[in-house]
Amino acid sequence: MAPSETAVDEIRQVVGADHVIADPAVLHEYESATFATTQRIPLVVLPGSVEEIQRVLELANRHQLPFYPTSRGRNWGLGSRVPVQDGSCVLDLKRMNRILDFSEEQAHITVEPGVTFQQVADYLAEKKSNLYLSAIGGPPDSSVLANALERGDGAGPLGDRARYCCGLEAVLPTGERVSTGLSALDGSLCGKLALFGLGPAVEGLFFQSNLAIVTRLTVLLARRPPHFQCAGFTVRSEAELIQASAAIRELQQLGVLTDTAYSLINIYRLLSLQARYPWDGEGNPLPSPEQLLEQLPAVLAGVRWAGFIGLYGASPGHARAQRRLLKAALKGKVTKLIVVDSVTAAIASKLRAPLSLLTDVDVEDILHKIYYGSVFLGHPTKLEGFSTYWRKRGPLPETCNPDRDGCGLHWICVALPFDGAHIARTTRIVEEVALAHRLEPMCMYFNMSQWYLKSFIVILFDRDVPEEARAARSCHDEALARLIEAGYSPVRLGIQSMTAIVPDQSHVELLRRLKRLLDPNDILAPGRYDFRHRWGATLR
Amino acid sequence: MAPSETAVDEIRQVVGADHVIADPAVLHEYESATFATTQRIPLVVLPGSVEEIQRVLELANRHQLPFYPTSRGRNWGLGSRVPVQDGSCVLDLKRMNRILDFSEEQAHITVEPGVTFQQVADYLAEKKSNLYLSAIGGPPDSSVLANALERGDGAGPLGDRARYCCGLEAVLPTGERVSTGLSALDGSLCGKLALFGLGPAVEGLFFQSNLAIVTRLTVLLARRPPHFQCAGFTVRSEAELIQASAAIRELQQLGVLTDTAYSLINIYRLLSLQARYPWDGEGNPLPSPEQLLEQLPAVLAGVRWAGFIGLYGASPGHARAQRRLLKAALKGKVTKLIVVDSVTAAIASKLRAPLSLLTDVDVEDILHKIYYGSVFLGHPTKLEGFSTYWRKRGPLPETCNPDRDGCGLHWICVALPFDGAHIARTTRIVEEVALAHRLEPMCMYFNMSQWYLKSFIVILFDRDVPEEARAARSCHDEALARLIEAGYSPVRLGIQSMTAIVPDQSHVELLRRLKRLLDPNDILAPGRYDFRHRWGATLR
Repeated sequence: MAPSETAVDEIRQVVGADHVIADPAVLHEYESATFATTQRIPLVVLPGSVEEIQRVLELANRHQLPFYPTSRGRNWGLGSRVPVQDGSCVLDLKRMNRILDFSEEQAHITVEPGVTFQQVADYLAEKKSNLYLSAIGGPPDSSVLANALERGDGAGPLGDRARYCCGLEAVLPTGERVSTGLSALDGSLCGKLALFGLGPAVEGLFFQSNLAIVTRLTVLLARRPPHFQCAGFTVRSEAELIQASAAIRELQQLGVLTDTAYSLINIYRLLSLQARYPWDGEGNPLPSPEQLLEQLPAVLAGVRWAGFIGLYGASPGHARAQRRLLKAALKGKVTKLIVVDSVTAAIASKLRAPLSLLTDVDVEDILHKIYYGSVFLGHPTKLEGFSTYWRKRGPLPETCNPDRDGCGLHWICVALPFDGAHIARTTRIVEEVALAHRLEPMCMYFNMSQWYLKSFIVILFDRDVPEEARAARSCHDEALARLIEAGYSPVRLGIQSMTAIVPDQSHVELLRRLKRLLDPNDILAPGRYDFRHRWGATLR
Repeated sequence: MAPSETAVDEIRQVVGADHVIADPAVLHEYESATFATTQRIPLVVLPGSVEEIQRVLELANRHQLPFYPTSRGRNWGLGSRVPVQDGSCVLDLKRMNRILDFSEEQAHITVEPGVTFQQVADYLAEKKSNLYLSAIGGPPDSSVLANALERGDGAGPLGDRARYCCGLEAVLPTGERVSTGLSALDGSLCGKLALFGLGPAVEGLFFQSNLAIVTRLTVLLARRPPHFQCAGFTVRSEAELIQASAAIRELQQLGVLTDTAYSLINIYRLLSLQARYPWDGEGNPLPSPEQLLEQLPAVLAGVRWAGFIGLYGASPGHARAQRRLLKAALKGKVTKLIVVDSVTAAIASKLRAPLSLLTDVDVEDILHKIYYGSVFLGHPTKLEGFSTYWRKRGPLPETCNPDRDGCGLHWICVALPFDGAHIARTTRIVEEVALAHRLEPMCMYFNMSQWYLKSFIVILFDRDVPEEARAARSCHDEALARLIEAGYSPVRLGIQSMTAIVPDQSHVELLRRLKRLLDPNDILAPGRYDFRHRWGATLR
């Protein structure tokens, strides 16, 4: 399966010898994810331009070498940079990290694969822009483009990023460059503005796929709200949850709440974002997940879910109306509700010392998390990255790198109707499965639209403890299977789960035909979202 | 080119003899659009089920018969039911007119191709639903499904319908049935709720295309606003327009204004919606378009554009904040601004008699148009349909049917950045071209998003007056060419304009390969949005 010396030489001539990696130590890094993998990577190639990508693909076709593209490799919990299939070379696009275009007036930014969320945030800050890019919960050094292509999610306006991208440029597996949307029309003034082009839309084929390498895309940007407010609330029972969810959904139907500006997390997930797993360092038996809840601050006793909502006001009166609508909607349906605006944040900040004493929480820290540095305003956060160290023994490192540090993380992403009963049911499934594996059941929910939510289920463990790793994998597989069985379809898949789901045979057959058409030599990311386990005979 | 007797017999056996039309008089009706066409239709087939569509396509492949699908045939101004290519049979899907599913709780409705906007509005009214489907300006008996697939637009929330559809079921040209999105996953609870599925999205291929026949889709529904307001304003100069547009766009960026809830029309279009062309019935020379403006009521003297905005308030305070923001934003930037809410509408309704006398306008009629029966609230309107009779000599018929009645209409749809300077520029282009042809330049603009607008350019004429018809076609071709040249890309094409634009060759080549893959015998709507004029040699 290793590429021939000739092939490697030819690739070196295209990208330069410095950008072809065959050093086993480095390859091993690329082979590491947040869970055990067996895939071997024979070669890593780092092209510096679209032309180099085209020429590498030409060689890949000629030498029948499979290549797996990665932008920043931060697909933690779903496989990081590791190819789906054993023996694939990695095409690492991180050198292509230019912001190619930006318009304050038109509110968009055009990026290459290697551009990160932090880079965009810094760029906009430097430009003193009035715009922002909705931030992911994941690491700030993730690729904006890859996040969009994976149909990842940001918090706050335009967070369902795949719905707010346009003007893709891509290289097909056979090397041709194509443009999508109106940018396929010469001289169009709306190639970076319009969500649709003219005629059939091909860009959908390039999301969660192995049908092209996208080399640039334009992401639409949101305008900073003059009167941002952030609400937090807690819920103690399923009955409360169902009532509160209906009220929140109605606010969204009425245009008070925005898509992807509501998140709900269960108590275990809240714990992992607030604290570290209580190792005593003495080798005593670990506390059970249930025992952990006893360590919560008094204010969280009995709480099962905590919700956060961003409200985007255009004027003081507008913000006041939103706040009143929210308070009226949740009255009597949640345990606690606080709404922070610029006035209350300033007061709380002044009174932080006595408040912290009284409530046993770090008020300054909370204010930063939910208001000044809110992820709802596009501030990249390292919180989630460091949460991958939850069960990791030892001190936290300076920089977060769960692949390197042996942190264990499985992610499951499913869709559910926007309805508290479905939230309760998915949480219960995850609780049952995780607790049976002596792991903390962690669930997060986001409002993708007024119609449905996504749930992200987080399974944290220590990769260096074999029994934990085995339990985590088994927990992941069982939870995913039970969620699918109950109708909660996955909307992303990890490299370990590409065969976990069986679409309609006619849908699979259509994807097979498209793959055969666009990638006749099967060289691009074979196995990635192509459901080939259902192809029957072979590709051909 | 006519199908053989054998083929027709076989088709009759599939759909029943009553549903195969070869009567020249009826075929002639199908061959009629709102402009001159030369395409001949040998046969019209009306299948009653998906299975019948599959079997007709099987026969089409066997006998190499091209079929052009149509749902309700109301594609006025862009070709009605007439196929792009001469000699195509028509597959009329109007018999498949069932509402297959509806959920008040989940806010969606699933329709077959023949379901009309009026049918959905009546159905929801009968159910006393709190939901509505954004209405098109076009005729109420248009197909909801076809409008979505053509990427048509409604007014008010969710009006960019292609962004709010899911769970398509389609028949490929080779007869296979496929499902899209999460509905391709067995048992998914979100097949009718989620905008994306898992893996590559194929549904984009079925919009504005000839790659499949969509047999059902689910449209997401909006919730009725408790406190609807409608604003109207007029603008007299380009300077005003540019300032007002910037202010309106900012309101949309800040979440005060909703996508597709703002429309702007130029004075000639306003005239055509308010009055009929002033034939004197004596055969005297026609007034020039410029002279027509002299006949406007005093209140519209000097007005160049009129704008309409729907505001969707969740509470009285919310509505008040929206109204104040709108008024503050437009203050000093427009000539007149009125905002109608339930209180002012009730008062105006009571005072309609004196108000009508004072202002020389029919207050009741205006109240119905802009408030009680507002298109922004999903009320289908016949206004635009009857406006196709603008230059038609003689009295208005009982029912509107411009294809039958020899009304002349060319439509042009282009995209432009959300910016008053671009509105002014496109209006100027249309004015120059239309006035040179002695036709009224009519432009409409809609906010598809906070980033871009669509403009619909309407060229009205009398098809039975040959010199008008020639002038109109020449006006259409020249205006379209000049708009494209200036960077305003078309986002829909009429059957007469499928060759008016040249996408990138690599994009065309990709579409050609997809067409060859999915429709190897080239039997489905050949020439429709496939840019075959750029294919080079032949399909194969």
